[in-house]
Amino acid sequence: MAAAPCRNSFGISANLDGSSRFLYRKLEFSAVNFPPNVEFSRLGFYPSLMCKEYGGHVHCSSNTDGQTNEEVLTPVLDMIDNPMNLKNLSLKELKQLADDIRTELSILSKTNKSFRPSLSAVELTVAIHHVFNAPVDKIVWDIEDQTYPHQLLTGRRARLNKSGQTNGLSSYACRNEYDPFGTGHGCSSISSGLGMAVARDIKGKKDRIVSVISNETTMAGQVYEAMSNAGYLDSNLVVILNDRHHASNPKLDQAPKASINAVSSTLSKLQSSQFFRKFREVAKVLTKRIGRGMHEWAAKIDEYARGMVGPTGSTLFEELGLYYIGPVDGHNIEDLLCVLHEVASLDSMGPVLVHVVTKEEYAVEDNQTGKVSKDVIEGPFTIESGPIRSRPLTYSDHFVNALITESEIDDDIVVVHAGMGMETPFRALKDKLGDRFFDVGIAEQHAVTFSAGLSCGGLKPFCVIPASFLQRAYDQVVHDVDRQKIPVRFVLTSAGLVGSDGAAHSGAFDITFMSCLPNMIVMAPSDEIELARMVSTAADIEDRPVCLRYPRGAIASLDPSLYLREPIEVGRGRLLLEGKDIALLGFGSMVHNCLRAHAVLAHMGIDITVADARFCKPLDMKLVRMLCKNHKFLITVEEGSIGGFGAHVAQFISLDGLLDAGIKWRPITLPDNYIEAAQPNEQLAAAGLTGNHIAATALNLLGRTRDALLLMC
Amino acid sequence: MAAAPCRNSFGISANLDGSSRFLYRKLEFSAVNFPPNVEFSRLGFYPSLMCKEYGGHVHCSSNTDGQTNEEVLTPVLDMIDNPMNLKNLSLKELKQLADDIRTELSILSKTNKSFRPSLSAVELTVAIHHVFNAPVDKIVWDIEDQTYPHQLLTGRRARLNKSGQTNGLSSYACRNEYDPFGTGHGCSSISSGLGMAVARDIKGKKDRIVSVISNETTMAGQVYEAMSNAGYLDSNLVVILNDRHHASNPKLDQAPKASINAVSSTLSKLQSSQFFRKFREVAKVLTKRIGRGMHEWAAKIDEYARGMVGPTGSTLFEELGLYYIGPVDGHNIEDLLCVLHEVASLDSMGPVLVHVVTKEEYAVEDNQTGKVSKDVIEGPFTIESGPIRSRPLTYSDHFVNALITESEIDDDIVVVHAGMGMETPFRALKDKLGDRFFDVGIAEQHAVTFSAGLSCGGLKPFCVIPASFLQRAYDQVVHDVDRQKIPVRFVLTSAGLVGSDGAAHSGAFDITFMSCLPNMIVMAPSDEIELARMVSTAADIEDRPVCLRYPRGAIASLDPSLYLREPIEVGRGRLLLEGKDIALLGFGSMVHNCLRAHAVLAHMGIDITVADARFCKPLDMKLVRMLCKNHKFLITVEEGSIGGFGAHVAQFISLDGLLDAGIKWRPITLPDNYIEAAQPNEQLAAAGLTGNHIAATALNLLGRTRDALLLMC
Repeated sequence: MAAAPCRNSFGISANLDGSSRFLYRKLEFSAVNFPPNVEFSRLGFYPSLMCKEYGGHVHCSSNTDGQTNEEVLTPVLDMIDNPMNLKNLSLKELKQLADDIRTELSILSKTNKSFRPSLSAVELTVAIHHVFNAPVDKIVWDIEDQTYPHQLLTGRRARLNKSGQTNGLSSYACRNEYDPFGTGHGCSSISSGLGMAVARDIKGKKDRIVSVISNETTMAGQVYEAMSNAGYLDSNLVVILNDRHHASNPKLDQAPKASINAVSSTLSKLQSSQFFRKFREVAKVLTKRIGRGMHEWAAKIDEYARGMVGPTGSTLFEELGLYYIGPVDGHNIEDLLCVLHEVASLDSMGPVLVHVVTKEEYAVEDNQTGKVSKDVIEGPFTIESGPIRSRPLTYSDHFVNALITESEIDDDIVVVHAGMGMETPFRALKDKLGDRFFDVGIAEQHAVTFSAGLSCGGLKPFCVIPASFLQRAYDQVVHDVDRQKIPVRFVLTSAGLVGSDGAAHSGAFDITFMSCLPNMIVMAPSDEIELARMVSTAADIEDRPVCLRYPRGAIASLDPSLYLREPIEVGRGRLLLEGKDIALLGFGSMVHNCLRAHAVLAHMGIDITVADARFCKPLDMKLVRMLCKNHKFLITVEEGSIGGFGAHVAQFISLDGLLDAGIKWRPITLPDNYIEAAQPNEQLAAAGLTGNHIAATALNLLGRTRDALLLMC
Repeated sequence: MAAAPCRNSFGISANLDGSSRFLYRKLEFSAVNFPPNVEFSRLGFYPSLMCKEYGGHVHCSSNTDGQTNEEVLTPVLDMIDNPMNLKNLSLKELKQLADDIRTELSILSKTNKSFRPSLSAVELTVAIHHVFNAPVDKIVWDIEDQTYPHQLLTGRRARLNKSGQTNGLSSYACRNEYDPFGTGHGCSSISSGLGMAVARDIKGKKDRIVSVISNETTMAGQVYEAMSNAGYLDSNLVVILNDRHHASNPKLDQAPKASINAVSSTLSKLQSSQFFRKFREVAKVLTKRIGRGMHEWAAKIDEYARGMVGPTGSTLFEELGLYYIGPVDGHNIEDLLCVLHEVASLDSMGPVLVHVVTKEEYAVEDNQTGKVSKDVIEGPFTIESGPIRSRPLTYSDHFVNALITESEIDDDIVVVHAGMGMETPFRALKDKLGDRFFDVGIAEQHAVTFSAGLSCGGLKPFCVIPASFLQRAYDQVVHDVDRQKIPVRFVLTSAGLVGSDGAAHSGAFDITFMSCLPNMIVMAPSDEIELARMVSTAADIEDRPVCLRYPRGAIASLDPSLYLREPIEVGRGRLLLEGKDIALLGFGSMVHNCLRAHAVLAHMGIDITVADARFCKPLDMKLVRMLCKNHKFLITVEEGSIGGFGAHVAQFISLDGLLDAGIKWRPITLPDNYIEAAQPNEQLAAAGLTGNHIAATALNLLGRTRDALLLMC
């Protein structure tokens, strides 16, 4: 099912009737006091729309594969080429447009979970593009997952449909006409939006800046730094907080404690007040804001007035210097339009925070019964395989198994998890460890120093963070852990290339930036048994920090029941296959590709040596010396950037005199560019890290350049 | 004056009469309702104190140099060997102790500015150690500069006095009996304290954790992350905010806009309310807190009640989940004792924030006239030279001059400054650029992404951050700048070793972690003219990010008026001296040490080549190839860790085949350990980076090991 072109098969799928009902239910016109200047006939202004039939039952969609699609109706969306097309749509049409987008995303999200968070932002996106004038006005998003409605409205529908069919490879390009700033690890939209707002003021321009943030990122320190600075600089800036309810997990709403920190429980309280401001009230408050001038007493009364009528919690943002408006029902287009029109029409507002409350799974609820549709929500999910019933085991599963085993031996083991989202296996770890599992969300800086504190308090913290997210807490790793030689065990998940998540989430630099730290032990397992042994090794190290990195989604084939508690001696690598002339010294995940290269070369009658370094730091000097002495060529292979494992080997063999004695060293690292989203194998090929690439390097060294060329064809 | 043992000359110094008066003024007993169980006679419990005369006029201090000091009276402080000695002191004695500490610090701060911030924390520290039981209770400090009273009370008085005389080399060791966590870049005390609190709860212990934070660090994202997590986890934790007035800059208090972000202006508002809670009121509020249970309505009333009587702004902390108490007068020991006793005596409080308002320059005010004593406040100051009237020019001066010249040519140039404190020359830059200079304080993450936003808005941002502080924003450099190829010009100050500021502030890793980024241009000037040229180079680069690093406090000798606008071609190094056999390829500050090595060797009749790489990335391939082809040995020299410049050269010469062709490469980098505080020359020697070290390496390569040994003797 995963690879099938689902758009075409949609109409005949029985289990989606609910969604179809939903589509039609929304077609009713709802009477509102909306400005009368928006009329249906205005559509005539857009010649490009005239050729398409509006609202009919049979519609030829502009499908990229050229096939006719008679089942799915997205009449208004089909007429939108760019955001200007939204300007003269009536309220009814805007609602239909939202429904169209929802329909499209619901289909796309069948095969790619990453589209689902965008369901929360459908009406919000429509309202933003109706009120603001992109690309003159800048719309800055925080998280890629919420940008799909925005992409559908800004000329990228065809590409999205294509990527949906190919399992949703990341399609959100950095910086283009409609995206003044690329999303990375979230948390960046206020900082970057504020920069653009200040630049606009300096340059005397008049465009408006809209930064959208998510409740997930409000716990990140950078957002706080940015809001505080925005409050101080007082530039005009509209910040929209898309505060998502999790309909699939209603507990999150009921119990503030179920959220992961105080800010999220404050937001929960705000949400649960169910007190949505309506148009008139917002207007009144805004007028008061403008009218109050600088008179302190009036401002004071205003504050208390808002304290009484508004929900508690709003003051958090007010204290940071943002004018709080909300909460607003994020699925009510009328309310959104009214609020955003007001906000957009006012000059000299300073920074404003519009708090919009939405539901992620709005589309997939069965509206007849209030039940959640099972088809989408059920079960764990991986991008590779779609919704799954029995998931193949990954490195993370093995890590979790090993750590659970360790924690059963040692009561002091605790886990701190940080980063965006959580891999499925860690949920099991969380359940198992209970109060000894701390998920702090996107608060990596705190996670690292908090782990150091836990260690100072006599516990054994494992600090689990995706490799690229540890970049957010590098200074804390240096000063709060390494310099103080505090035993914190860093576990870097998603190390190396990460397939569909692309460059934003790949762990390319961690070997480099961790191995240069004086007290850090840096290791990487080459298979799942080694991973389990390294978990034991890390648990046993009590005098200094240690990190281990393992790749995303690698499917483990060995039986976890074979696991024996067998820690590895620190700084001891292993020789896997003994050959001659050429030695391949792999680090972590690349050991397997070295073995593949060995197989390729063996097939050609060439017998080379393969060794597993295990440790980048401390290096197994004995092993490296032996490899240098017994071979002509030493090739180091790592799935990381320049400056890491290869650099450490080079420095050692230079200072040890081995390089002078004749060994010829070649480093194979990630290339000096970002590898964009692709299938894992395609990425490895692009990076030159496949077994064939390694074998070709060996052949070149042996002077067999023609064989090397043939290998790469 | 700087190096003189000021303690001995203090009594005869005329301009300190004000301080002497101050000392005696405080000896009066002030009547208070203090618990009657603290009596003077309790001193008898401490046999070690009996041998010393209390309150007499002639006192032999335990000066480390054994000299008799008859002038300075610190009668109570002299009796304190450890915090247990404080337990039974009367209020009068505690006040005298505070005065003693103030006297001692005032003297120390004459020669070392870094003692001055501690003046704000004198009474607070005395109160903390009277109420809490260190080392069983853990006192965690945020900023080293505020820990000197704490160090005086915890057995490190002798060392402080000694370090004061030797220009205040950092004496605050990482983690010892009384310091459960080392200070680094600030902002860490809540995260680490929370970790200890959670560990304590898990282990069923009962000790108390006190985390002290400073108003300077409240703008940092990590503090926000930590408070929010503390509010959620709800462990017992006492957070004390030492909120310092700057008496030397009263504008800061009057105008909230003078502070650098919204949080600091909120704090200013809190301060300026001048509404200090007294004992009874605190007790009442605390009782209410305990009594309110989980009844929502009662809690609501409580909140409003506090909103009415307390200052606005307190809710910021309340929203984050900390119970706010304050503001408390941080120089009133009675109030401090009362509040801390109450806080310490309650179980199940959850996290509490005690807001203490203090004055940094409290001690040096002339109490008769309200004027600030000129002796301490006047003028800029460098650690190396003491208070100065005409400061020698540094690299930062040249940078500022060059950037001002650029900004006069190009209106689009803006500066974003982040980090702890600001070097003196940047104040001139701030004055010159006005609204185009943004100082965001310890909010590096925001600073980097904000710079990216400014760039997207069409400006040319220079983002100025000390090299080690850029570690705090590494992820933003990767994803918000480099991956998006946004032209932000990073200027890393204090790159390399930093003398007295020690390992916490040295920029050891920046070449490594910046050069591995695919789009980053990495350069370093070898002198001040090169620095000015690189500023022009950076200003001209508009298609990608660039960073340049320069060292702390290096004294420039060239005339800035010689400056011509002459950008350097990107990736072009330069040959400085042509010799044979050995080529030294220096990067940045190390080029000068290569020239020193050249001089040493020339004296021995050995003629070597010296080249200035200028760029770590892109490397000058032509220059490196030429050096490899014409020499037997290539020595790369950098003031940075492994994985940086040397690694880039090694990777290039390996892949280019030069290494195979016979060149012998030696990397000279910072060693694989942290270099602790020392005089710059001592640090360079410890790191093996002096001209003699480089020359010795060359001699060893030439087989003249005996000469090399002699050189190092």
